[in-house]
Amino acid sequence: MKALVYHGPGKKQWEDVPDPTIEDPTDVIVRVDTTTICGTDLHILSGDVPAVTEGRILGHEAVGVVTEIGSAVTGFKTGDRVLVPAVTKCGRCDYCQAQMPSHCQTVGGIGWIFGHLIDGTQAEFVRVPFADTSLYLVPDGVTNDQAIFLADSLPTGYEVGVLAGGVRPGSTVAVVGSGAVGLSAILTTSLWGASRTIAIDSNKFRLEKAYEFGATDVVEVGPNTVADVLALTDGLGVDVAIEAVGYPETLLTAASLVRPGGTIANVGVHGTPVELPMQDMWIQNLTLTMGLVDTVSIPTLLKMVASGRLPAEKMGTHHFTFDQIDEAYDVFSHAADNQALKVVISPS
Amino acid sequence: MKALVYHGPGKKQWEDVPDPTIEDPTDVIVRVDTTTICGTDLHILSGDVPAVTEGRILGHEAVGVVTEIGSAVTGFKTGDRVLVPAVTKCGRCDYCQAQMPSHCQTVGGIGWIFGHLIDGTQAEFVRVPFADTSLYLVPDGVTNDQAIFLADSLPTGYEVGVLAGGVRPGSTVAVVGSGAVGLSAILTTSLWGASRTIAIDSNKFRLEKAYEFGATDVVEVGPNTVADVLALTDGLGVDVAIEAVGYPETLLTAASLVRPGGTIANVGVHGTPVELPMQDMWIQNLTLTMGLVDTVSIPTLLKMVASGRLPAEKMGTHHFTFDQIDEAYDVFSHAADNQALKVVISPS
Repeated sequence: MKALVYHGPGKKQWEDVPDPTIEDPTDVIVRVDTTTICGTDLHILSGDVPAVTEGRILGHEAVGVVTEIGSAVTGFKTGDRVLVPAVTKCGRCDYCQAQMPSHCQTVGGIGWIFGHLIDGTQAEFVRVPFADTSLYLVPDGVTNDQAIFLADSLPTGYEVGVLAGGVRPGSTVAVVGSGAVGLSAILTTSLWGASRTIAIDSNKFRLEKAYEFGATDVVEVGPNTVADVLALTDGLGVDVAIEAVGYPETLLTAASLVRPGGTIANVGVHGTPVELPMQDMWIQNLTLTMGLVDTVSIPTLLKMVASGRLPAEKMGTHHFTFDQIDEAYDVFSHAADNQALKVVISPS
Repeated sequence: MKALVYHGPGKKQWEDVPDPTIEDPTDVIVRVDTTTICGTDLHILSGDVPAVTEGRILGHEAVGVVTEIGSAVTGFKTGDRVLVPAVTKCGRCDYCQAQMPSHCQTVGGIGWIFGHLIDGTQAEFVRVPFADTSLYLVPDGVTNDQAIFLADSLPTGYEVGVLAGGVRPGSTVAVVGSGAVGLSAILTTSLWGASRTIAIDSNKFRLEKAYEFGATDVVEVGPNTVADVLALTDGLGVDVAIEAVGYPETLLTAASLVRPGGTIANVGVHGTPVELPMQDMWIQNLTLTMGLVDTVSIPTLLKMVASGRLPAEKMGTHHFTFDQIDEAYDVFSHAADNQALKVVISPS
């Protein structure tokens, strides 16, 4: 088959590789009909994720069809249309049983293994371990172009942003960064009845998109960002500030937007330490949360997409075929400049 | 009357001042029968709390008897034995109604006003604003020497440590710092059925005390602190790490003791920024909480003391009279060296 193979920092190639085969009785093989690119894939290509070694097939998001099942698999059969989520889970360890498979101890202590510790989904076929507890059947009425975003970006914004932030009916929410994950958070705050959702970004295209995804207000990044948000929230700040970028300054911005008793939900992937002004923060009764997505909200999100309440397909702004995957990476690498959110990649 | 008056950094004096009077109809006057000293009083004397101005009577913890009531007070009468908590609350603002009077908007945006924004409790008498919603009747069977610690230190360890940390039956807990507040956290983890409570300190006296207060294990601070705790908790760390000191290094220690999915409950008062290793923490699904005590757990704690399950009196290791208050400060300023936890101060 063909697959996108990592060859060290900055190097990747769409090339011939052996077809994946069943290795364990709990495996299935999935023919990939739709995949996408995640910001994490760009981090890997920058050499930021040393656990990814040369020869690894990239990608951790897919929708496709089961073509082969291991002898112990009972929940899926060949021909099933399935969502392959970013997180693989044994379903049995303490973390899986506590609904936190992001730290599944069986698959390596971290649930994200596709395109990281094992071969990934930017390929014609992918081997999926622990299929019974990891895959999701895609219901009729949910298209591949919708389901693909439920593999990672939409549950990330929802779980690590909205749920961890404790958004509740009436909450005021600020989302720092309106890329795909920030917009996913904005889109899903409505599920919890936020009274006000304020999108913050430096890019006008993204701020326009934020309105489409349900923001009630937008604030362009500038010298008055904090003052502008405080003015929208009775001078004290928001109940929940969601950080969806991953830099020290954006986390500090989020921290400065939240009112006493509020929550800062960090979604961004950080590469450096962050100096938190604890001398000011300790007395504010704040909560700071952070984490990798668990993808345990996928059943909820699939139902909401099927019911028409979550237009997940709006996240896919650009479509490519597998043999255009280099171009897809180029567009996604400069998403804001290209008026792109997420790319959709399919065989032909 | 006599009171301990702040005269600028490093200066205080037990001296004659005018008796407090009813200023608002919701006030009462309380004769102070028991008070104590808090670490925050030491911060004030170091000049760290600029909101405290010269001439301010210090202290924010008292047990005493109501001697006079304002015309609007209906819940208390003269002669009632009451606990004056560190936090004053209007009972009516959004924060009070959300059970977070630490940020009562009516009394100044911060519920801690005694010995801070108004005159405090290290005095023969104290004026208590918003008495109906702030005071607690001390039940028979709870002595002054027990109740005094429910004014601040015990609810701080319980609310900002145990409750914010989300201690649950079976939780493993590490408490970094075994002073009065750390020991209060240790004492109250048992209320929530922690399976293991590990006390960490550099002082042998405090570690001995930690066993008395319910620690199941103690770890002396040293080069192997983290490894020692991990060895007690299946190599992954504790569910909840409570930081009860307030320095960057102790917060970082707490962060390094917690397992993926765990909570770091910061109780310590910080004076400087803290550089958090977000590049390692973001993926660990951690929660960091922090805050000023709300004292809303006082009714619960009073019941637990009355039932004999919380030996709060053990916190008081040294007793002084008002005219020995300088000596009381000296002992408390070097508590660990003096084998002191909290001091109890009374009229005679």
